Amino acid sequence: MGENGHPYSPAELELPGFVPQRLSQGQILAPFVGNAVFSVLGAWLISGRCRGGGRLSRTDRLLMGWWLFAALTYIVLESPFLFTPDFLSKENPNYFDELFKEYSKGDSRFAARNSTVLALEVVTIVLEGPAALLAAYAIASRKSYSHILQFAVSLAQLYGRLLYFITAYLDGFNFWVSPYYFWAYFIGSNSSWVIIPTLVATRSWKKISAAFQAEKIKTR
Amino acid sequence: MGENGHPYSPAELELPGFVPQRLSQGQILAPFVGNAVFSVLGAWLISGRCRGGGRLSRTDRLLMGWWLFAALTYIVLESPFLFTPDFLSKENPNYFDELFKEYSKGDSRFAARNSTVLALEVVTIVLEGPAALLAAYAIASRKSYSHILQFAVSLAQLYGRLLYFITAYLDGFNFWVSPYYFWAYFIGSNSSWVIIPTLVATRSWKKISAAFQAEKIKTR
Repeated sequence: MGENGHPYSPAELELPGFVPQRLSQGQILAPFVGNAVFSVLGAWLISGRCRGGGRLSRTDRLLMGWWLFAALTYIVLESPFLFTPDFLSKENPNYFDELFKEYSKGDSRFAARNSTVLALEVVTIVLEGPAALLAAYAIASRKSYSHILQFAVSLAQLYGRLLYFITAYLDGFNFWVSPYYFWAYFIGSNSSWVIIPTLVATRSWKKISAAFQAEKIKTR
Repeated sequence: MGENGHPYSPAELELPGFVPQRLSQGQILAPFVGNAVFSVLGAWLISGRCRGGGRLSRTDRLLMGWWLFAALTYIVLESPFLFTPDFLSKENPNYFDELFKEYSKGDSRFAARNSTVLALEVVTIVLEGPAALLAAYAIASRKSYSHILQFAVSLAQLYGRLLYFITAYLDGFNFWVSPYYFWAYFIGSNSSWVIIPTLVATRSWKKISAAFQAEKIKTR
């Protein structure tokens, strides 16, 4: 615990009425692991049973799991942050309050309710959450907008992470308690939200280009 | 001129060494009008001459003008802002310094070099500028990635403006000198960067969905 009554960096950050965290790192992480297993396994099992219009490819079934995981992360795990401005000072903190106390060790802009981080969360939760859910549905029901929707959400995810990293750099790059939290939370936990959207966006870009290429050849 | 030696809002903003603006609003706006006329007219005339593979539609020719205008705005008119941190205090300000002094009347976050605004400019100039230029080329040469590229840049433009507005709201919504500058600059000059990308993204979304719909019917 720092001089200002909280563990976060920079130490001069003022967080009046801070209530120390009670849950351990393992307890915080468990629901994320649960969400990942539930989403990927659930989407895999359900998509294996629906066979209207031919079987879905393995990639499509895994992508359904990814979109379900993303939607649940945004809507269930992240949205309470928006609606709990006093999460640091609540006498009886719930899981979600504790979750953002823990993540703030890797990026204290969450504890400080930095406006950029808040704005990014608004877009993620309000637009990308429902859109990710729609993407899972679009794959399952083979909608013709499936690829452009997946591309759109992936690009929004990438734009969001890019801005998240650039603003951290411009604002001083000193928001983590230690190198461990820098690598584990700021870099590590964000990296899957960069790597997977890059792969999904690239795949959809290629599929879309191929569809126009095929159209071109047929109309010649 | 306010108490702190500058005309911007909020008055308590500290801008040491501020050199008052010399160019008028008309002188500032002229290059924008010139860029618009040059881009749309230039793209229209050139695209009317290239006829390899059938004529381009009127919409495509206008879109080439739009992308050229966007690219020149980002790369030529906006990029000097990134590389001139001292634009407010230069003894002999050039056109670009004066441009951002003028725009700061509608949003003083530019004068203050707010990190969100800077990060948005980095993405716009470094990624969207070259991508907009590529979009004009892709339309002209009928690339199969033309629609997905146009969609990508439009979505990035929309995401950028959304974040621009949300952060202004969260940070106090008091960055304009007067209601005139609020409506003319903050709302007015940004609105074309919302309306046109919405139209372009919607059009490309529909074309992409239609391409997959056509593919589906043919493979039945």
